[in-house]
Amino acid sequence: MHRFAGLSPGAVVEEVAASLGCGVTAAAVAEFLDEQDELRCLRGQFLLPKVADLPPSDLSLVDGEEDCVYMVGNSLGLQPRNTQRYLQEELDKWAKTGVHGHTEGSRPWAWAENNIEELMANIVGAEEEEVALMNGLTVNLHLLMLSFYQPTTERHKILLEDKAFPSDHYAAESQVVLRGFDPQQSLLLLKPRQGEDTLRTEDILSVLEEEGDSVAVVMLSGVQYYTGQLFDIPAITAAGHRKGCLVGFDLAHAAGNVELRLHDWGVDFACWCSYKYINSGAGGLAAAFIHQKHKHSIKPALMGWWGHRLETRFSMSNEMDLQPGVNGFRLSNQPILLVCPLQASLEVFNMTNMQALRSKSVLLTGYLEYLIQHYYSPDRDQDQDQDPDPDRPPRPHVRILTPRDPKQRGCQLSLCFSVPIKRVFQELERRGVACDMREPSVLRVAPVPLYNSFTDVHRFIQRLEAALSAAADQ
Amino acid sequence: MHRFAGLSPGAVVEEVAASLGCGVTAAAVAEFLDEQDELRCLRGQFLLPKVADLPPSDLSLVDGEEDCVYMVGNSLGLQPRNTQRYLQEELDKWAKTGVHGHTEGSRPWAWAENNIEELMANIVGAEEEEVALMNGLTVNLHLLMLSFYQPTTERHKILLEDKAFPSDHYAAESQVVLRGFDPQQSLLLLKPRQGEDTLRTEDILSVLEEEGDSVAVVMLSGVQYYTGQLFDIPAITAAGHRKGCLVGFDLAHAAGNVELRLHDWGVDFACWCSYKYINSGAGGLAAAFIHQKHKHSIKPALMGWWGHRLETRFSMSNEMDLQPGVNGFRLSNQPILLVCPLQASLEVFNMTNMQALRSKSVLLTGYLEYLIQHYYSPDRDQDQDQDPDPDRPPRPHVRILTPRDPKQRGCQLSLCFSVPIKRVFQELERRGVACDMREPSVLRVAPVPLYNSFTDVHRFIQRLEAALSAAADQ
Ligand SMILES: Cc1ncc(COP(=O)(O)O)c(C=O)c1O
Ligand SMILES: Cc1ncc(COP(=O)(O)O)c(C=O)c1O
Repeated sequence: MHRFAGLSPGAVVEEVAASLGCGVTAAAVAEFLDEQDELRCLRGQFLLPKVADLPPSDLSLVDGEEDCVYMVGNSLGLQPRNTQRYLQEELDKWAKTGVHGHTEGSRPWAWAENNIEELMANIVGAEEEEVALMNGLTVNLHLLMLSFYQPTTERHKILLEDKAFPSDHYAAESQVVLRGFDPQQSLLLLKPRQGEDTLRTEDILSVLEEEGDSVAVVMLSGVQYYTGQLFDIPAITAAGHRKGCLVGFDLAHAAGNVELRLHDWGVDFACWCSYKYINSGAGGLAAAFIHQKHKHSIKPALMGWWGHRLETRFSMSNEMDLQPGVNGFRLSNQPILLVCPLQASLEVFNMTNMQALRSKSVLLTGYLEYLIQHYYSPDRDQDQDQDPDPDRPPRPHVRILTPRDPKQRGCQLSLCFSVPIKRVFQELERRGVACDMREPSVLRVAPVPLYNSFTDVHRFIQRLEAALSAAADQ
Repeated sequence: MHRFAGLSPGAVVEEVAASLGCGVTAAAVAEFLDEQDELRCLRGQFLLPKVADLPPSDLSLVDGEEDCVYMVGNSLGLQPRNTQRYLQEELDKWAKTGVHGHTEGSRPWAWAENNIEELMANIVGAEEEEVALMNGLTVNLHLLMLSFYQPTTERHKILLEDKAFPSDHYAAESQVVLRGFDPQQSLLLLKPRQGEDTLRTEDILSVLEEEGDSVAVVMLSGVQYYTGQLFDIPAITAAGHRKGCLVGFDLAHAAGNVELRLHDWGVDFACWCSYKYINSGAGGLAAAFIHQKHKHSIKPALMGWWGHRLETRFSMSNEMDLQPGVNGFRLSNQPILLVCPLQASLEVFNMTNMQALRSKSVLLTGYLEYLIQHYYSPDRDQDQDQDPDPDRPPRPHVRILTPRDPKQRGCQLSLCFSVPIKRVFQELERRGVACDMREPSVLRVAPVPLYNSFTDVHRFIQRLEAALSAAADQ
């Protein structure tokens, strides 16, 4: 999409429409953008559900044979096509060779996850030795915090969002209690300004400037799960470091979604799951990152045999020969059945790179935003309906919570509606759209550059129009 | 096998041989025992490797078409036949319905593990609410210890084996350090008496009697991984309780191997993996147990959203509504791809029960022991070779480290040889035997009552004879 370089997504849409001689809302615009999309063949690497297979689909409203409009990669990514094959290979190995699978084949179970850690590191801008694949996300967050959060009476706070993802909130709270501090005193919660939905970077930085001396650890998300806001990770990291804080991120919604340079930015630690944008299946293997600078200084608080150097791990001496850095944080042997789908997905990521994915993503989500604004901007009625018919119900509005600046978001847009969200959500689902509703009142829509097309976005908008009318009719 | 009730395994073998009119070492004895075995059809529920498929097999020595002699269920259990089908069902669900799989189908991913916890509880004699399936074993051990190990200056020790499994040793060590104590002072290590291989129950109890007042937590294995010794869990638990200690067990080698009554015995906490005797595949989902008596008193030190009550877990309020007991210790959502094989295996266990499996096991391992003693007892030469030929190399001996009393062991026998073990091991492997060698010098042989037959044991002995001759020849 080099020809659009430098243009805003809206300008691209308008230029394409003009060049095609059609309106900005025409399906032809989406089709044209798909043709230009150099990553479009990656869609073929995933298994896309058909409308007829989604349980809530109403086949009187929509063609069951079509691909569904899958906009929920923020929650659960699609299945990579090679998943089944890789799993079958390991099931066969287990069936045929039993315990020998630990050391045999292309994925020796005893170190299979190590073989794909480089692929994962590429996605987050880390060095291979900085990344460990293990456990679940919340487990990893705790293992890291146990080492990084070392509160003292002067510096005992954890800086996190007021509306952090619940698991992160509980994690921070319990870490504070474990260390004998009081969450009321030691959790420093960042709230958006009155009347605003997202946090301003300047406000985060000024809290750090003012209160940083009492902050032991900054623990924010990369992309906020509810609003879709992408935090300025390098700026926050640098500001935290200036005040002597350690800075870590939960990248559940950022990894595989936005470009990250964890190593270059000097982020101290991070963790993320792999079942969202990284498509490893429900409950897939999670990851942990510790920057190389801590390689010899940060030690795990909790130890297990998998943190022991591999060469001598099985000599059973009970004298710990700890691997440096994040590798020493491994506790248990890891499940081969989770390595397979993750490998299948990471290989697709590594057919391209995050830079290319991100530049498609900015346009894809920008296109979605442009069409939503075009049809449902809260300001629209005033602008266009100069003389509104008083008997006609007002046109529904959609408010986008997510920052408008592409640099402050990933692929997800979080939408609020002027009509009851539950109805809108149900009507979308009846029409073969998979997206998700998050309590209390947001619809999250995430066109994913790996497998979503511009036509998916266009179809989503068509379905949304139908869903909103149906919802308003009731 | 009711007709043998009350007889020792040796007496059974001799009675069967007499009734068949053959020698005690005849294959007919094994065949007869297999015919009498009411559990023999369970073998058909597992995929047994063929000799030809085991990488080290030498087909000039043994028929590749035969089932291998799989004696290593103590390390990695065989694949339950339904594993592939269940996995495929979930892959299909993922492919066809994406995120809807979280709540749809027979294994809704968001609580699929909860649906098989009762099956697991049956195996260890626990109530359903006392068991959680989650994480890896060492991870669970740490999560439990963080709550159960609360050292004070008077009571700060962890009682464990001197030669505990390395991961358990590292876990205990790091827990002590995390709490600000010194492993030199706070790890109380149980050693066998001089010249003995295993711990005497009386010695464990007297250490507790003498030093119990300073012991915060007793943390032993159920079955010792190296020696195969089964500890007297109820006696140790009671003795620990008398001294005010909390008592927990690592049941990696006990769960699915011996009868357990964790609830009735009042064990405080326990954890185990599922890839050994419970056949869930490498790195399978582990388990944790907390006794109901602690339901409202013991709280998790580390918290995550999966510990929140399911009904309101997704309302994202950030106010923890903690599930009581072990259920509150859940942190992350669990992988559906690990639930499938575990379900397949637990269903086989639940076709019978641990009592029936254990009574087969006692006879099966007793038969193995009987034949080893018969051929390779260290005392044998003196007894039988009254006038040994000084030019003939001495017959190799096998010493059984594992206690001779069936009540003090599970199915595993740990063997030491008078010839170099590495050669014996290699020669066995060349002959289609899967067993395992543990540093420094033990061969672990585990006939598993779920899928091993008496004929397997007989074939093992034949192979061992050939292996020992080959090893001695070199
Ligand atoms: C007795 C015992 N404890 C702990 C472990 C460690 O298990 P994991 O890697 O599943 O944490 C094992 C593994 O074999 C074991 O046998
Ligand atoms: C931002 C964030 N943090 C933590 C979690 C918890 O993940 P897990 O259950 O994998 O520990 C999630 C899951 O959706 C998440 O979105």
